[in-house]
Amino acid sequence: MNSAIIVAAGKGTRMGQGVDKLFLEVAGKPVVAHTWQRFNDSSCIDEIVIVVRDGLQPAFAEMAKLYMFNKPHRFVPGGAERQDSVWNGLSGLNPASEIVAIQDGARPCTSTELIEATIAAALETGAAVAAQPVTDTIKESADGKLISRTMDRSRLWSVQTPQTFRVDVIRRALTEVRQRGMLVTDDTAACELIGQPVQLVTGTKPNPKVTVRADLPLVESVLAGVNRPSL
Amino acid sequence: MNSAIIVAAGKGTRMGQGVDKLFLEVAGKPVVAHTWQRFNDSSCIDEIVIVVRDGLQPAFAEMAKLYMFNKPHRFVPGGAERQDSVWNGLSGLNPASEIVAIQDGARPCTSTELIEATIAAALETGAAVAAQPVTDTIKESADGKLISRTMDRSRLWSVQTPQTFRVDVIRRALTEVRQRGMLVTDDTAACELIGQPVQLVTGTKPNPKVTVRADLPLVESVLAGVNRPSL
Repeated sequence: MNSAIIVAAGKGTRMGQGVDKLFLEVAGKPVVAHTWQRFNDSSCIDEIVIVVRDGLQPAFAEMAKLYMFNKPHRFVPGGAERQDSVWNGLSGLNPASEIVAIQDGARPCTSTELIEATIAAALETGAAVAAQPVTDTIKESADGKLISRTMDRSRLWSVQTPQTFRVDVIRRALTEVRQRGMLVTDDTAACELIGQPVQLVTGTKPNPKVTVRADLPLVESVLAGVNRPSL
Repeated sequence: MNSAIIVAAGKGTRMGQGVDKLFLEVAGKPVVAHTWQRFNDSSCIDEIVIVVRDGLQPAFAEMAKLYMFNKPHRFVPGGAERQDSVWNGLSGLNPASEIVAIQDGARPCTSTELIEATIAAALETGAAVAAQPVTDTIKESADGKLISRTMDRSRLWSVQTPQTFRVDVIRRALTEVRQRGMLVTDDTAACELIGQPVQLVTGTKPNPKVTVRADLPLVESVLAGVNRPSL
């Protein structure tokens, strides 16, 4: 069976004023409800584990009722860092789960097609991640003041979620991270640590993360079905 | 004196359907009119050279009338590549010009504060560029299929415009590029080639480029004065 973990335990500190970005309304419902909807709707996903902050479990249970999210789901508590939240999510999976798609709660535009493409790639390679070629000009700076060099943009990819894995692979990778006491920015970095190849899966639509309030208009237009010609 | 070059000669092929992204309406006027407005309004800028596509000069002259852009300006024709357009722009500068701010016509949210900060930095270092720390997780891939490694994001900067230079510096840098028959993605890359240090100047607001129609809602919200808390 295939599972999803939706990481919805962030502190959202970049929004300021204690506003939780996951609960901002966009296109008629909270950001995280859109995210949940996609996994609820995907016929490839059998169960959903949602990692939530202490005290917010009732709000999420209410959301499931309101939007009629009828796919099996359960809640687990968040950890100190994102990787700890993912670890908690893994402990909440059905023991029969073979594939897990790990998703940022704050990425409401992820499509069911993209979810399913990462599952297919993870079945093939063991690990896969939604990614977009970098279109900005990227410079490296050693001191944050002067440019050190121009990066070769054709080799750079911006990675998003879902990050999708064979369950045994991601468990092994995160165990290694925890034993070494490391901090990783994303789950595929844990795979790199154990030499597990990770496949890039390119989506055809923007898949932005809501980090600040100014991100909402783009999210709204993507949700409204504005198509972005492939780059 | 200080000059600006607005590069407005792109083909806009990523928008599809022959739509020129520079002429898309946002917040009541064409994208490029917002860009022009900022340089028209900046008290640090003495003249504006606008690089336009063949045949579009009358449309730009009309725009100047309509929006009462009263700062001295002139038009020069675009070249085959962006760097050729910039080269043409340099040939159109007043001989007394000491500093030039080079701007993408498709970046309508650039603030006068940012323009002036890059001028101050260029006076100090010889070259400066508007930049933002990269917030996405960036991976390198040798083949575009599998991840090769995770980049150290704390060293990566996404560069925008204005890219601002001492006029003698950018002339020398682009002459070198042309003599070597190279193609550079931006003007600061030309400076790297001649060993000219380039200073990073961080703006406080988003400064997006209009590349596809889906970029317009964000641009609209920035123009409407939505503030993005500093990251």
